[in-house]
Amino acid sequence: MSTHQIDKLVAGLGERDTVSLARLISWTENRDPRIDEVLRRIYPRTGQAYRLGVTGPPGSGKSTLIARLSVALKNRGERVAVVAIDPTSPYSGGALLGDRYRMTEMSEDPDIFMRSMATRGSLGGLASATESTLDLLDAAGFTYLLVETVGVGQITLDIAKATDTVTVVLVPESGDGIQAMKAGLMEIADVFVVNKADREGAGQIENELESMLGLRPRRDEWRPEVLQTVAHTGEGVEDLLEAVDRHRNHMKSTDALKERRRRTLKLRLFGEARQEFLDRFEAAAGVGFEDLLDRVERREMTPQDAARDIVNRLAELPGSASSDPAKSQ
Amino acid sequence: MSTHQIDKLVAGLGERDTVSLARLISWTENRDPRIDEVLRRIYPRTGQAYRLGVTGPPGSGKSTLIARLSVALKNRGERVAVVAIDPTSPYSGGALLGDRYRMTEMSEDPDIFMRSMATRGSLGGLASATESTLDLLDAAGFTYLLVETVGVGQITLDIAKATDTVTVVLVPESGDGIQAMKAGLMEIADVFVVNKADREGAGQIENELESMLGLRPRRDEWRPEVLQTVAHTGEGVEDLLEAVDRHRNHMKSTDALKERRRRTLKLRLFGEARQEFLDRFEAAAGVGFEDLLDRVERREMTPQDAARDIVNRLAELPGSASSDPAKSQ
Repeated sequence: MSTHQIDKLVAGLGERDTVSLARLISWTENRDPRIDEVLRRIYPRTGQAYRLGVTGPPGSGKSTLIARLSVALKNRGERVAVVAIDPTSPYSGGALLGDRYRMTEMSEDPDIFMRSMATRGSLGGLASATESTLDLLDAAGFTYLLVETVGVGQITLDIAKATDTVTVVLVPESGDGIQAMKAGLMEIADVFVVNKADREGAGQIENELESMLGLRPRRDEWRPEVLQTVAHTGEGVEDLLEAVDRHRNHMKSTDALKERRRRTLKLRLFGEARQEFLDRFEAAAGVGFEDLLDRVERREMTPQDAARDIVNRLAELPGSASSDPAKSQ
Repeated sequence: MSTHQIDKLVAGLGERDTVSLARLISWTENRDPRIDEVLRRIYPRTGQAYRLGVTGPPGSGKSTLIARLSVALKNRGERVAVVAIDPTSPYSGGALLGDRYRMTEMSEDPDIFMRSMATRGSLGGLASATESTLDLLDAAGFTYLLVETVGVGQITLDIAKATDTVTVVLVPESGDGIQAMKAGLMEIADVFVVNKADREGAGQIENELESMLGLRPRRDEWRPEVLQTVAHTGEGVEDLLEAVDRHRNHMKSTDALKERRRRTLKLRLFGEARQEFLDRFEAAAGVGFEDLLDRVERREMTPQDAARDIVNRLAELPGSASSDPAKSQ
């Protein structure tokens, strides 16, 4: 393992060099063992950037909205990075024709970094890679991280929920509000956006959302805002940023941001531990457990007792934890 | 822990006493710690019963078909037990009016044991509880276990796949074959049933399935059969049993049954180990990891290194493995 290479990439990260960034993000995706040492070096520098999640059903215009938000944030002096967790996202090559101009405009802007995360291996692995990527961008000095996830399925919801402010994007279509409630989007939204508000029915879904919100008090005393945008023309984008600012100020003034980040961190530790367990299991599965399998097959041992032995043995495996420099601190 | 109570329930199990069986199955569902000792006692007696999985989309008539199969198997002299993994199944109280007569007829038959498994806690827990329940029924002397799962989602597919013969039930509706392929049902089917074959389109879906099967050679050299039934009237049920017999004989004559059961067991050990890990994690999460969380929050340690520590610590927890009598064998 070349320390020199790691030195170089970490230095490149500090200058927001896109080649170094791209390489390191690939390491998180591929679970390259070298990423552990990189994360140890950069982790102390994280926690500075604000993380804004943008989620919602496919076709709600999240990518266009994010392109608009990125430019608006940049004009405010923020250093913006976008991470997209959606295999159908324009960033990963599936650009819709209508989005092309804006995407190009954005991608040519050296102050706005974009990356889509690939689903390699498990979805749990995707969540872990995304979190590590956000840490890399945070340590690189980006001040505003935009996280786009398609609001379908538990993992993408969890990724969205792990941000500081969650924006849920819907469109004026019959029953979209109800669908959002079913999909668990209601629970996680800090700000609702009815995008494509130039279409018929925008007012109706706004009312639907407002009345659903009226029924649900939130513990942290923030009442989610509902507003309309037309990402296509840029209408409402400044209003959206102001709503996000209000939520951010609320969070900071009430200590809610610290609590939320700790809660997120706890879930992340759980996810990482589960992933670590699965990795060790997979690494050992081919060689380590045939004896137990034999015993269970011969019915000398129950599957439950064999499972306990497996968990015990996995912990005794020589993991990379033994070379963990954090332990000697 | 009352050894006397366990003695009594295990004795009751040996006589296929329904009260004892119901109690023990509830223990598997609730992850009652006493079940471990029960399973240690009965596990050596398992592996005798034949396990037939019946899966397919909701509304394909699986329950009615299973009622017919149960009676037909009983008339052959088999001792039949049915385990249904479907929250909308008639057995759990959601009986459709049309099924009521047949269900009643079946449930009054003392030779046919029925049980629906409830989703308490995680889906992983459901798979584990189902496997243990099948072991209980196997040890109780039932010779034929019918396992009904709704063919939606990975867990229910995995449960279906863990049987000796998998029957996939479809209905003559446009695109059902394609849906089956998408849902992963094609890969696991040993026998396809086009049920409700008195409806229009039964021949078409049969042709669709046959042509899809033509494209996909299987490693174990069994070419899945496709046949039609009308569970409602009983038509085709004997043919279905004969197809299952042919598959069973094929499996036995080629050693494929032994291999399949070993493969299933391996997956089961993995599932049990994962569940064991999650249980330990949950038990320790409230008390054990706050120090690690603090360190990660202060950025003295990366989430990845903390996760390694968690996995290591979980193995050191005083699990019930320490009292595992199988170890001293």
